[in-house]
Amino acid sequence: MTQEHTVIFQPSGRRGKISHGTNVLEAARSLGVEIEAICGEKKTCGKCKIQIQEGYFEKFGVESKMSNVTPFTSDEERMLSSAEKDNNYRLSCLSEVQGDLLCFVPEEARGGQQVVRKKAGKLKYKPDPLLKIYYIEMKEPTIHDPEDDFLRIKQTLREQQGVVISRVDFFCLQNMTNKIREAKWKVTCFVLGDELVRVTPGKIEKYYGIAIDIGTTTVAAYLTDMQTGKVVATDSKMNPQVRFGEDVMSRISYSMQNPEGLGQMHKTIIDAINDIIGNLTEELNITSDDILEMVLVCNTAMHHILLNLEPKYVGVAPFPTAMAPAVDIKSRDLGLCINAAGNIHVLANEAGFVGADNCAVLINEEPYNSDESVLIIDIGTNGELLCGSKSLGVLSCSVATGPALEGAQIKFGMRAAPGAIEKVEIDVETLEPRYKVIGKADWHTDIAEVDTKGICGSGIIDVAAEFFRTGIIDKGGRFSKYAPTDRLRNDVDTGMPEYVLAWESETSIGKDIVITQGDVRAIQLAVGSIYAGAWIMMRELDIETIDKVVLAGAFGSHLSQFSCLLMGMFPDCDISNIFSVGNSAGDGARLCLVNKVKRKEADEWARKVRYVELTVFEDFERVFMKSMQFPHMDHPFPHVQHVLDEIPNWKKIAKEKKKRDKASAGAAS
Amino acid sequence: MTQEHTVIFQPSGRRGKISHGTNVLEAARSLGVEIEAICGEKKTCGKCKIQIQEGYFEKFGVESKMSNVTPFTSDEERMLSSAEKDNNYRLSCLSEVQGDLLCFVPEEARGGQQVVRKKAGKLKYKPDPLLKIYYIEMKEPTIHDPEDDFLRIKQTLREQQGVVISRVDFFCLQNMTNKIREAKWKVTCFVLGDELVRVTPGKIEKYYGIAIDIGTTTVAAYLTDMQTGKVVATDSKMNPQVRFGEDVMSRISYSMQNPEGLGQMHKTIIDAINDIIGNLTEELNITSDDILEMVLVCNTAMHHILLNLEPKYVGVAPFPTAMAPAVDIKSRDLGLCINAAGNIHVLANEAGFVGADNCAVLINEEPYNSDESVLIIDIGTNGELLCGSKSLGVLSCSVATGPALEGAQIKFGMRAAPGAIEKVEIDVETLEPRYKVIGKADWHTDIAEVDTKGICGSGIIDVAAEFFRTGIIDKGGRFSKYAPTDRLRNDVDTGMPEYVLAWESETSIGKDIVITQGDVRAIQLAVGSIYAGAWIMMRELDIETIDKVVLAGAFGSHLSQFSCLLMGMFPDCDISNIFSVGNSAGDGARLCLVNKVKRKEADEWARKVRYVELTVFEDFERVFMKSMQFPHMDHPFPHVQHVLDEIPNWKKIAKEKKKRDKASAGAAS
Repeated sequence: MTQEHTVIFQPSGRRGKISHGTNVLEAARSLGVEIEAICGEKKTCGKCKIQIQEGYFEKFGVESKMSNVTPFTSDEERMLSSAEKDNNYRLSCLSEVQGDLLCFVPEEARGGQQVVRKKAGKLKYKPDPLLKIYYIEMKEPTIHDPEDDFLRIKQTLREQQGVVISRVDFFCLQNMTNKIREAKWKVTCFVLGDELVRVTPGKIEKYYGIAIDIGTTTVAAYLTDMQTGKVVATDSKMNPQVRFGEDVMSRISYSMQNPEGLGQMHKTIIDAINDIIGNLTEELNITSDDILEMVLVCNTAMHHILLNLEPKYVGVAPFPTAMAPAVDIKSRDLGLCINAAGNIHVLANEAGFVGADNCAVLINEEPYNSDESVLIIDIGTNGELLCGSKSLGVLSCSVATGPALEGAQIKFGMRAAPGAIEKVEIDVETLEPRYKVIGKADWHTDIAEVDTKGICGSGIIDVAAEFFRTGIIDKGGRFSKYAPTDRLRNDVDTGMPEYVLAWESETSIGKDIVITQGDVRAIQLAVGSIYAGAWIMMRELDIETIDKVVLAGAFGSHLSQFSCLLMGMFPDCDISNIFSVGNSAGDGARLCLVNKVKRKEADEWARKVRYVELTVFEDFERVFMKSMQFPHMDHPFPHVQHVLDEIPNWKKIAKEKKKRDKASAGAAS
Repeated sequence: MTQEHTVIFQPSGRRGKISHGTNVLEAARSLGVEIEAICGEKKTCGKCKIQIQEGYFEKFGVESKMSNVTPFTSDEERMLSSAEKDNNYRLSCLSEVQGDLLCFVPEEARGGQQVVRKKAGKLKYKPDPLLKIYYIEMKEPTIHDPEDDFLRIKQTLREQQGVVISRVDFFCLQNMTNKIREAKWKVTCFVLGDELVRVTPGKIEKYYGIAIDIGTTTVAAYLTDMQTGKVVATDSKMNPQVRFGEDVMSRISYSMQNPEGLGQMHKTIIDAINDIIGNLTEELNITSDDILEMVLVCNTAMHHILLNLEPKYVGVAPFPTAMAPAVDIKSRDLGLCINAAGNIHVLANEAGFVGADNCAVLINEEPYNSDESVLIIDIGTNGELLCGSKSLGVLSCSVATGPALEGAQIKFGMRAAPGAIEKVEIDVETLEPRYKVIGKADWHTDIAEVDTKGICGSGIIDVAAEFFRTGIIDKGGRFSKYAPTDRLRNDVDTGMPEYVLAWESETSIGKDIVITQGDVRAIQLAVGSIYAGAWIMMRELDIETIDKVVLAGAFGSHLSQFSCLLMGMFPDCDISNIFSVGNSAGDGARLCLVNKVKRKEADEWARKVRYVELTVFEDFERVFMKSMQFPHMDHPFPHVQHVLDEIPNWKKIAKEKKKRDKASAGAAS
């Protein structure tokens, strides 16, 4: 029999009996306590910190304070600061329960509720859904006309509505016989393509469907009026799979390391979607049975986990998916709680790393109908690019932005949750920053309580661009030794330079929030990867410039277009031709929900788009390395040239100042 | 809290605690004791007899013997004989448990195992199944060819086998990714139409499907080699729904009277089919996952119960079914334990009382391709007729044979189980019978232990025909008062005439087995209904004679063709043109399993057959009344005329004898 111990997590106060030997991160999860674990338990991110406050309950004084957890590991030695070690901080993924424990989860390690900012846009096409409703009045059967119910409906639909059906869903069939008679043969038929999926008494005027964009981090759902295409209710939540790993690769690893991992993650997302369905239908005061169709989009890894398909191979070269074309699945087969006869349509994947979500962006933005050349950048947890025009055709590629833009691998990085710095400006003279924190109405300089916790993606982009614009870092990303500000200092442990963005007093985490040299490198990698992808696609299309840049994704809509261009995230473009289109994937999903022509177009264009595997190009590494420069490479950036011209060269300024000081000292002496 | 009592059933010895007020029939069922209840608890059949042997256990002597059951009802007064009443017989459906009980189930009331005699015939067409298997060897994905698994299979199938698929079953998709890789990209694909339903490692040579004929009384299943069409294993069992009622109307009533009735009966048949699947696959040493398709046929009521569809309306005029066309249902939706991606194909119903089983007969016998006019009589628990030819087209009708031919409503009627009289001959001189009992190798006159229990359908037909041939009954079915045999007597209770077929000493039930005037009436009704149906169809087709008669069904194959013709079950026909084709419905189901052309033909012909609702004809009652005569009506029966000519007229013989006796007495005096 396994021994069990009492484990309590503060500040939530959740407690429970945990088996001896369970690691503390798992213990926390099993008690419903969310701890950030960005690396998916690969023991590399150092985010899942906890503080052991009491290691004994019943055995007070008999053993040492730390005896109820396994000893420090060398990984923790490396990843925790000396102060943390002194204060009994541990990494929860590396500590195992050996006795009763009281653990404190520090604020920065708590899995926060991300601010979901995936607003629905206006649809570009009028609804013409595959799922339609028809009201019919049937003749009752008689001894001279004893036709069966199905053929009676079929015939009446043809006569009264000009609609041809050829099939009936089995669950619909099981439920319709009595309903038809209760309704005295006057019913509304829900028809999906050529299949009868619901028969409901009397005349129904309105009906709804749900489109969901399942992001790696966020799930955004839109309850949509099928006849107007308007969103009538929205709901969104963190993708609860985050607890199994922040990015797709972590989740794929999790499934590989845990025999039940795929099933766990699958159930987690199905449950989450069912919650959302419940919320949406409750808001509109309808039942989940009233929903007969959902359209889902997501990246390939999320797609595979959603459908309970082995995701392993999507994670290793050559990254084949199990299923590229769109799939239609009966809701009952997937365990989604809409009407049991309802259809779940999942858009097509384009390639191993360009998923159904990009397919939705593709048919929403329609680069293939554009006379201008367009570069579409969809930055979620992954980066997916589309490039082309009507005459050029369309290429897609996936770029490994890394998780930097989502806050991971950044020392004080965090998701776009309250307390995250989302906008930064740095004064070019004083090199003093001002920033905006999510959840606060104004710049930090104008409010009393700032409560900063960290920095999110848009803030990171701003910081890097502002560092560059103010000369704090150079074209290569190195911190200037000469920039005249106290905020630039060297880290006590590593000796590496860092910039203090927020002083301890402005934070709720009790320490200075800094941007390190490592952080800048991570941003360079992310931004450079996007540029390199765009550059290679342009070379493939044999074009030198881009007419229009589209930033898609919730993240894209919060980016400063100027910061992006200044850093060289994409090739030069007139700022007025850079558009943030919001959650284009969600909008595309809704289009496919309410418009069957667009749905067909999606499946076709997912095949027509030519996927470019960047790593097959011999010069990719070289291009990528060069792309990491700000703005980068040898390419001209005429639209920001005036800004580039004004970047202070602190070394030169310092030298000149020194020379002047020397001269004036000489003159004084 | 409900009081509970101990109830024991003998001879099985099953015992258990039963709630106060439960009726004894239900109590028996709940303890797994099968009691015959042909009427579906409509309290009309009088079959569910039990003998209360002890009505007290703990309260010995305190109360009267019968105090632990509710008092006699007027229905029982009527249905039980005085001897039975004296011996504490009760009808179990009419007695409720009021205390501890010891009940004896007399042999004739025990639900026996019917002898299932539904042998598979030879198929008339070569296999060309919808479900096919293909072996392919795929190229592994590379970075230059990272196509998804599904499209890779699709493309390889097209290239190597010339097969086009467009869909993949969701459960197949979920399982194939790892299998493909384990198999090093060499797999066998199961393709159903245009859908990929199974991917299995390596090369598979043989594969199987299952065809099942779900009769009201018997379920017969054929595990079939899909490539040869040969039956490789068979299994059959009583339809366990029998305990809810012997005939379709009783089961429909049961579902109407019990809110959970439909669900109960549905689950019962699904469980039974799953047992059969288990038996069949075990016999062949394959797994149920290896089975990807089943074809099911049954009558409309069984069809509705099988599919969990409301059967109520099939039971009342104008008898509309919920679904006439064939249905394809994923096995997982029906809860049938073959491969989860497997397909269940249920043939089309033709009309309210002409079900999928008749559709199977139709495409197996193909009257629509016959140059001769054909009458096909499928007598199961219901009677369904088909009549027509290539030039005439084909009509169908349903006739209410009543349950007489299955042994119900016959005083000593029983199913075709061991102990049942199945063949009868009566000597035209002595009027002594000889009969054959199921389970015994020879005529009863040639064996020592006869152990007769009752009489089954084929025996009943024989008895009636022999009564008629030997003059025991007249053309109108009345017993002759003059037939010179002791076996003809009057019933003690009713005063009605009856014929002793088996003396008590030959039986295992301790009483004489008799054929009553009521029994003869029941047979007349059954036989007359078939003739009337045939006659009206012939009138509709404007034909005077029939070239060929086909007796389908297990029952049909045990009938004496001569007896049938002599009784006028169908219009006159050369005996050499009367064929017994065995379980044609089962053979038709197998054909549809292994031949996609026949499957399509079935769906088409189910629509093309013109259903004739007999009750709409004003003269139907008159025709029916006349049809009840032996052989009947005003129609000539040239092929049995020589027999008819020799029927002794006992009244005339007796009169002549009397005259002779008188004359000789006069001569002597």
